[in-house]
Amino acid sequence: MTVSVEKSTTPSEPSYCFQATVDNIGPQVVGGRGVRIDIENEGKVYKNILDGVTGAAVGALGWGDDEILEIINKAAKESTYSFAPVMSNKSSEALAKFYIDRSPPGVFSAALWVTSGSESNENALRIIRQYYLERGLPNKVKLISRESSYHGFTLGAQGISSNPKTVPYQPYLMDQKNIALKMPAAYAYRWKKDSETEEQYGKRLVDILEKMILDNDPETIAAVIVETLPGSSLGTTPPPKGYLKGIRHLCTKYDIIFQLDEVMCGTGRANPHGKLNCWENFLDPSEGPDIQTVGKTLGSGYVTIAGVLIGPKIRNAFVNGSNTVFGGHTYSSHGFNCSVALGVQQKIARENLGANIFKMGTLLNKKLTESLLSTDNIVGDVRGVGGFQSVEFVKNRDTKKPFGPEANIIGRFKPLCFENGLAIMGMPANTNGISGDLVLFAPSFIVTEDDINEIVTIFVKCVNNFSKTLKQEGAW
Amino acid sequence: MTVSVEKSTTPSEPSYCFQATVDNIGPQVVGGRGVRIDIENEGKVYKNILDGVTGAAVGALGWGDDEILEIINKAAKESTYSFAPVMSNKSSEALAKFYIDRSPPGVFSAALWVTSGSESNENALRIIRQYYLERGLPNKVKLISRESSYHGFTLGAQGISSNPKTVPYQPYLMDQKNIALKMPAAYAYRWKKDSETEEQYGKRLVDILEKMILDNDPETIAAVIVETLPGSSLGTTPPPKGYLKGIRHLCTKYDIIFQLDEVMCGTGRANPHGKLNCWENFLDPSEGPDIQTVGKTLGSGYVTIAGVLIGPKIRNAFVNGSNTVFGGHTYSSHGFNCSVALGVQQKIARENLGANIFKMGTLLNKKLTESLLSTDNIVGDVRGVGGFQSVEFVKNRDTKKPFGPEANIIGRFKPLCFENGLAIMGMPANTNGISGDLVLFAPSFIVTEDDINEIVTIFVKCVNNFSKTLKQEGAW
Repeated sequence: MTVSVEKSTTPSEPSYCFQATVDNIGPQVVGGRGVRIDIENEGKVYKNILDGVTGAAVGALGWGDDEILEIINKAAKESTYSFAPVMSNKSSEALAKFYIDRSPPGVFSAALWVTSGSESNENALRIIRQYYLERGLPNKVKLISRESSYHGFTLGAQGISSNPKTVPYQPYLMDQKNIALKMPAAYAYRWKKDSETEEQYGKRLVDILEKMILDNDPETIAAVIVETLPGSSLGTTPPPKGYLKGIRHLCTKYDIIFQLDEVMCGTGRANPHGKLNCWENFLDPSEGPDIQTVGKTLGSGYVTIAGVLIGPKIRNAFVNGSNTVFGGHTYSSHGFNCSVALGVQQKIARENLGANIFKMGTLLNKKLTESLLSTDNIVGDVRGVGGFQSVEFVKNRDTKKPFGPEANIIGRFKPLCFENGLAIMGMPANTNGISGDLVLFAPSFIVTEDDINEIVTIFVKCVNNFSKTLKQEGAW
Repeated sequence: MTVSVEKSTTPSEPSYCFQATVDNIGPQVVGGRGVRIDIENEGKVYKNILDGVTGAAVGALGWGDDEILEIINKAAKESTYSFAPVMSNKSSEALAKFYIDRSPPGVFSAALWVTSGSESNENALRIIRQYYLERGLPNKVKLISRESSYHGFTLGAQGISSNPKTVPYQPYLMDQKNIALKMPAAYAYRWKKDSETEEQYGKRLVDILEKMILDNDPETIAAVIVETLPGSSLGTTPPPKGYLKGIRHLCTKYDIIFQLDEVMCGTGRANPHGKLNCWENFLDPSEGPDIQTVGKTLGSGYVTIAGVLIGPKIRNAFVNGSNTVFGGHTYSSHGFNCSVALGVQQKIARENLGANIFKMGTLLNKKLTESLLSTDNIVGDVRGVGGFQSVEFVKNRDTKKPFGPEANIIGRFKPLCFENGLAIMGMPANTNGISGDLVLFAPSFIVTEDDINEIVTIFVKCVNNFSKTLKQEGAW
């Protein structure tokens, strides 16, 4: 399918939304069908852009899915709002049962549905806190998350995150010295020593964590929180071999909650069996997390839903304690949202789209690796798992030296892809908070091999042309 | 319409949702039409319960509104997900323009749409922080909110709140000593001295605030944040005369942002002109807030949406500075949610339902006051504005002494109302964090005078019967 560019028929408007560039309306999505989107910008409409990233790894089904439109219609007819702290509904229960049943047996026993990934991590923190209060352990309060991590954009979620976006809001975050501790990120491409195997690097990181637990008094550590496959923070850097197992082992050893954040990488985007959880790539079912946050593909962009999955250890402590979750959000367990998300997930399961995206994503990785790392260009690394892949740009492939922010690499590269008909996500690589450039791929689960080939063709062409341009400019 | 009770035809299920009573599925909403809801509980279905509180003051239109079902269907067909930090959509712009245009001219100039009231207050805090950074005033960082306040259930929102639900999470909140300062609540029923007029009480509170600003260095105060009409915290206690004007004046005087939280009381629930903002009862247009959070009735429970309204002072500082809002949420400006919310608000405006609820709510207040305060029962106060009303129970009407928590007044009273066919919200009154009992009313904007009469009849009957029971028990 070819991209076409038409003149926009709608007049130019001022911007009333407080986001992105404040006084500029910027590009607007005006349509979508399957893996293609239509975007209006500065008086032009670009039709049939190939969507390589589905917004921010949100899309699981394609856009404008007719079956989901029917499901939305039915869900709207059948749902009546309920306020979760006093009243439940059948859709939220059904979605919880579905997610628990599609996960390895015994790992999860309950779920809480909220409206964003940020809220899911906020609620996970509150559940962790109450868990220890239920057990009569109020001093188990410290949280260990990672440097170069992203767990959301509300202040509690930012408190356990570590990235340039958290810096301005430090005054409003929880205590970063005594409560929200940070361990090093796992980033094999940059920080594994040449002298180490991947396993040795993983063990080194786990040893650092154990020392941190011991230095900070294990009796005061509440949880270790990591993204299974980091997205916005480090660009789909897979955990080194044995690393997550090592963390799980330490959490069990020291009576600490093991929390995985799968808001971006989970819910079918990267499961090796075509199911839901990304951690099944790295952990046995018996090593699963005690609590897990999810979002994004759960509602596939049709509805605004995210969730917290709770393991039996935590649920039992509540049931054997107060048996009560204190308070809740107005939109927790929103019946309509849960009903639509269930429809989305049932379709994905029935059509085996989880298996498809794992296969297609793996193919994307293989083709990008083959095409880009065999020739001379600015690509330093191609990495990811299943349908969640990244390409990291570097100034020097041997030394891995990144471009500086002044080179504006991603800012220049992304429009090139767009002009060639491909939507990607460009982000800074947080190697030092300011340098480095990443491209993120997270296509719909319905992508075909032809779509993958088209993504690769456009992307490789853009990389090579851009590399040439940079060479001519003397910037590379 | 009479309430009917039928045997449930669905089997009893275990609970998979992590909320309320953890191992019990509890009551479930199974249907709704207009101002009536159907609730299944313990094997029975209660049909046509009169909904006096619409969940948690969420419903604006009635449940199952046919026109909104069509709007949902259309919105689903026409919306494609967009990631707000890089891409916009026309529905979010249209909803922003609508809200700005339905507010007094010049008060708001932009809006950010998010997915919950908690998120709206989180984002307001971030916007406030960036506002001062844009102006080169990084030390303007302290926030002054109120005791006995509720601004949401995420950790940042809890940090500016003060209620029993925040206590367990103190370790994860922002600095409560140096950053998130608290001034006294405005609660005329309990804390206005008999020797004071309402104006004098308001002035006393404003003087306390001014002393607090001066004692804490005005150059370090970022914002004063209050609920225009507190809901979950103090039960629709109207601000004393002159109080909000006094705060506005101090904020202008000391270059401090004036933030109103209208998540629960705003968006049509209590506007004297049948429009949107609750503060128009108490402030002139020229005294409007610099930033305002909204939610609940915005989507009327059909979609999970909330927002932040931004005044020109803040927007201009951004535009004249970086002109950029850093980052955003995956579900900011969600096109489908915005489209449905716009449909809801357009219908409310077209059918003049804002005027109706203001009139009906005022009538509810009048009838409850007349019926309850003229006879001997446990009611101490009837208060509220427009469609947001409360009744406070006391052990002694003269001394205003509340019942103790051991009396479980609300826990016993709420089921009585339910058995008689009326859904209300019962809450603790935070007079001291543990004692006191409140009933909250927040019906749909479509209620008729007949509905109001029915609410009053059932409620008055329940209050009088319950009062008699308590007297017989010797508890009152």
